[in-house]
Amino acid sequence: MTSMKILAIDTSNQPMNIALVEDEQLLAQTTLKMVKNHSVYVLPVMDTLMQQVNWEPQDLDRVVVAAGPGSYTGVRIAVTTAKTLAATLKIELVVVSSLAVLARNVPAITEAVIVPFFDARRGTAFVGRYQWQGDQLTSLVADHHVELQQEIAALGELAQPVWLVGEVTPKLAPVLADLPANVHLLGAVWATPNPYQVALAGQGEAPVADIDAVVPRYLRQTEAEMNWYHDHPDADPLANDYVKKV
Amino acid sequence: MTSMKILAIDTSNQPMNIALVEDEQLLAQTTLKMVKNHSVYVLPVMDTLMQQVNWEPQDLDRVVVAAGPGSYTGVRIAVTTAKTLAATLKIELVVVSSLAVLARNVPAITEAVIVPFFDARRGTAFVGRYQWQGDQLTSLVADHHVELQQEIAALGELAQPVWLVGEVTPKLAPVLADLPANVHLLGAVWATPNPYQVALAGQGEAPVADIDAVVPRYLRQTEAEMNWYHDHPDADPLANDYVKKV
Repeated sequence: MTSMKILAIDTSNQPMNIALVEDEQLLAQTTLKMVKNHSVYVLPVMDTLMQQVNWEPQDLDRVVVAAGPGSYTGVRIAVTTAKTLAATLKIELVVVSSLAVLARNVPAITEAVIVPFFDARRGTAFVGRYQWQGDQLTSLVADHHVELQQEIAALGELAQPVWLVGEVTPKLAPVLADLPANVHLLGAVWATPNPYQVALAGQGEAPVADIDAVVPRYLRQTEAEMNWYHDHPDADPLANDYVKKV
Repeated sequence: MTSMKILAIDTSNQPMNIALVEDEQLLAQTTLKMVKNHSVYVLPVMDTLMQQVNWEPQDLDRVVVAAGPGSYTGVRIAVTTAKTLAATLKIELVVVSSLAVLARNVPAITEAVIVPFFDARRGTAFVGRYQWQGDQLTSLVADHHVELQQEIAALGELAQPVWLVGEVTPKLAPVLADLPANVHLLGAVWATPNPYQVALAGQGEAPVADIDAVVPRYLRQTEAEMNWYHDHPDADPLANDYVKKV
């Protein structure tokens, strides 16, 4: 087996995460939170890490990017950076879910349903449902955009224990304060996605993307889209008419 | 409550870990593995992270250092750096166990006994026994230096499930291949200590150290010590005669 050198990027939410991983081994990673503008830091942090492990850009075999869901700008920065690198260096691009990365903060010691979430404003959240099956993290239900209250009620109907993993923002706090008996909230200190896990989520047999076809995963309409569809009631959101017209 | 800005350092084993944490919130962290000489990287990485979050050295309130067990040189680099910073800046120094940091890779979703380990050569390991009690990680048995085979046999006698967490080196692999029914080995991807967890282990009410009195935690005699005691059969290891004489 030849060795596989991975650069992993996740700027889809508040933390900016970069990791360099070779054959499942973490070589270097940096997390920056509370930094206003991810775009200023992505390339310098990447350069610094590459120097520290003594890699040249042409040593890379694969770029793994967490393509969302997450912030509109943050997702765009990561996806654009990753596509540019993969196209320029002619290497593989693998796209992973930002929610799957967060779910991987819970190690494979439990058969509970793991439910990562990101605040998506107005009481809504981006949510996934995952489960460890052996050492494979499996998506039980596609990542989706939902009223968090509604999702938690649905989780309360499950016959299994559930671990919620995510940052309890002031808007989401009231909903998370009163949980069904089988639903638990993991402590805030495990709510930050881990750069190493971005690479692990996209290693090995993970499907390689068609670089040109990769788009951010918003999982909901932007406000501009919602307004446009409101003004164009005959347009079809599923056919992505907005993107075609604008 | 005033805010508490923490610099956390762990170079006690293969990864070099630095984190900046404010009031439980991770602001920035870097992990470098496979780097031969931690001493070359500690200060530049620290400087870079401080710049990225816009902190000056005098903004720091506390240094948290993982003081071992671990490699002789690695532990010494972290402890010396931390003591120097704390003394110079006149800020608090908190010492945490490098094994406790590794144990914290298992989040508080289980009541199993968590047993972090580091290879200590010749089939021996540095080992601890921890358990989450609510959101407090509690040490059940003091960190110790032991034949790993003997420790695993003892863990097999416990009436509880046990999770081993650590790097499976070639020397330890045979011992870890055949485990008692209640003892499980967490996947290799969770065997790297996390810089953020160094800070969390030493935050809040953690006891502040007397800077001058802090020494690395080797948990065993060095070869030089063993040889010296062999040549001085009347000397008392518990009274630390070696250090007094040499």
